[in-house]
Amino acid sequence: MSNNTYAIIGSGALGGFYGAKLQKAGLEVHFLLHNDYQYVLENGFIIKSKDGDFNLPQVNAYNNINKMPKCDVIIIGLKTTQNHLLAELIPPLLKENTVVLLLQNGLGAEPEIAKIVGEDRIIGGICRICSNKESSGYIHHSNGGLIRMGRYAINYQIAEINNKMRDINQNFEKAGVSVNLIEDLLLERWKKLVWNIPYNSLSVILNARTDEIMGDTNTRNLVAEIMEEVLEGAKSCQRQIPDSYIQEKLDYTDKLQPYSTSMKIDYERGRPLEIEGIIGNPLRMANKVGMKLPKIGMLYQQLKFLDARNIDKFSSKRKIT
Amino acid sequence: MSNNTYAIIGSGALGGFYGAKLQKAGLEVHFLLHNDYQYVLENGFIIKSKDGDFNLPQVNAYNNINKMPKCDVIIIGLKTTQNHLLAELIPPLLKENTVVLLLQNGLGAEPEIAKIVGEDRIIGGICRICSNKESSGYIHHSNGGLIRMGRYAINYQIAEINNKMRDINQNFEKAGVSVNLIEDLLLERWKKLVWNIPYNSLSVILNARTDEIMGDTNTRNLVAEIMEEVLEGAKSCQRQIPDSYIQEKLDYTDKLQPYSTSMKIDYERGRPLEIEGIIGNPLRMANKVGMKLPKIGMLYQQLKFLDARNIDKFSSKRKIT
Repeated sequence: MSNNTYAIIGSGALGGFYGAKLQKAGLEVHFLLHNDYQYVLENGFIIKSKDGDFNLPQVNAYNNINKMPKCDVIIIGLKTTQNHLLAELIPPLLKENTVVLLLQNGLGAEPEIAKIVGEDRIIGGICRICSNKESSGYIHHSNGGLIRMGRYAINYQIAEINNKMRDINQNFEKAGVSVNLIEDLLLERWKKLVWNIPYNSLSVILNARTDEIMGDTNTRNLVAEIMEEVLEGAKSCQRQIPDSYIQEKLDYTDKLQPYSTSMKIDYERGRPLEIEGIIGNPLRMANKVGMKLPKIGMLYQQLKFLDARNIDKFSSKRKIT
Repeated sequence: MSNNTYAIIGSGALGGFYGAKLQKAGLEVHFLLHNDYQYVLENGFIIKSKDGDFNLPQVNAYNNINKMPKCDVIIIGLKTTQNHLLAELIPPLLKENTVVLLLQNGLGAEPEIAKIVGEDRIIGGICRICSNKESSGYIHHSNGGLIRMGRYAINYQIAEINNKMRDINQNFEKAGVSVNLIEDLLLERWKKLVWNIPYNSLSVILNARTDEIMGDTNTRNLVAEIMEEVLEGAKSCQRQIPDSYIQEKLDYTDKLQPYSTSMKIDYERGRPLEIEGIIGNPLRMANKVGMKLPKIGMLYQQLKFLDARNIDKFSSKRKIT
């Protein structure tokens, strides 16, 4: 096993959590922070986790990308709404063999990042985790943690698992994080969308938690119908998700505690919504090959309206206070 | 011209306004009221109208259908959400030649009422009017007023204009209300839906006025796409609405003052929404002949969810206060 060095861009609920786990396991980790920089520089991280709480009183914290050392692995933990920053943030950290591990929801970020770093050193990670940043430097990991990692190849082709991925896998396992290495990143991304598209969208549009959506026959049916459209979308990209997967996801959601999706939380806090990554990019990918997804198209339009108004509302509030 | 006698069931923004105009023109009118009964009995109506304000200090007001005389014309001015009451309210007022004039939005009420009074004495009226009940007995008529009236025939077949309709037309014209007599009631109902389905639905789902919906490219496109589905729905019932009608309605809406739809106002006041008449019935009519309208189907599901939660919320508020 090589002891890779890690740079975390976006050290919040996801990046902060996984970075802290890696540091705790003895790996060298460098955290880029923005609003929380001063606090974390002075106090480090407190991780409250279902797998065991721990503190890291001292971490390598930065608020300037140019002060960070080049690293073997760059973990992107930003929301996709911040991806326009990556063309500036990634290049200063690159060594010859650096790989970029993208821990983001949705679809379509990998080809964007390929424009910055080339196509042969991007790994997409799909996280099954429930983690929240409660306050500066304080992260609460309440559920899951598994990451499925697949290499990106041009146009999301199937890509063999390589030694670099096995290496990263070993680092994560040492840190107590389960990893599945996969060859079909696009399939995994579409599978995650089966849940993310209906629940994230409807939770914002209807201002509803998952239990409310599931408790009403009309929206419950609507969720299932939207999931069918996601399967159609995957199929238009030559990826088969079995119909039974829909029932599996409905059953899974029925068992969840009343849950506010990440998009709903973003909306309530006046943050931009991950509409393009989660809805817009998959929609366009399907539309491009002639597959119409009318319900997902309508979710997109409704969310774009709500997002624009929400940002306006919050920015005028910020001006007043 | 016969001087028909009129019974108004639901004497609010529509029924109250047209009934008052008829009485002012010298016709005999009887008003059924519920919450406003005592006030209107004592004070009559005040009509503030763009065509001229007027007062009717004394009117025939009732709060009990059995105290009302049988009339030549029964005008239904209730919201369609109250139509379950009609099986009790209509029969006591019927003479041999009484006709029922249904001034309601949406589609599908006529066949329901045909079950009560038979198929040969129902006239559907489509009102192009902007009128609001501001308080008990006080109605504000701000725009329009035209009524298109068409006879109902089984399954909304084309139906010739008859003498009874010409008679009613003359009464309304005497009262200063323009009427168009038409033969194709179903076509007129679908045409009205081209506006009502997108704007009523989206105004509630997105909590938005017409100007907000039209001011955002995404929702503006969505409105046009929903209108296309309404045209598809009409076509599935063998009714052709030209594509140019969509642009006409968009242009019309662009010129409106910022406007809250009636469904949005109902929602804000915790009243049940006219989902079945405006969205559910047209949707089922199209579905029945194999025409899927996926966007309208999704509007229906979203509205049913919001309506159920809204009624719950308001009824628990009412319990508390």
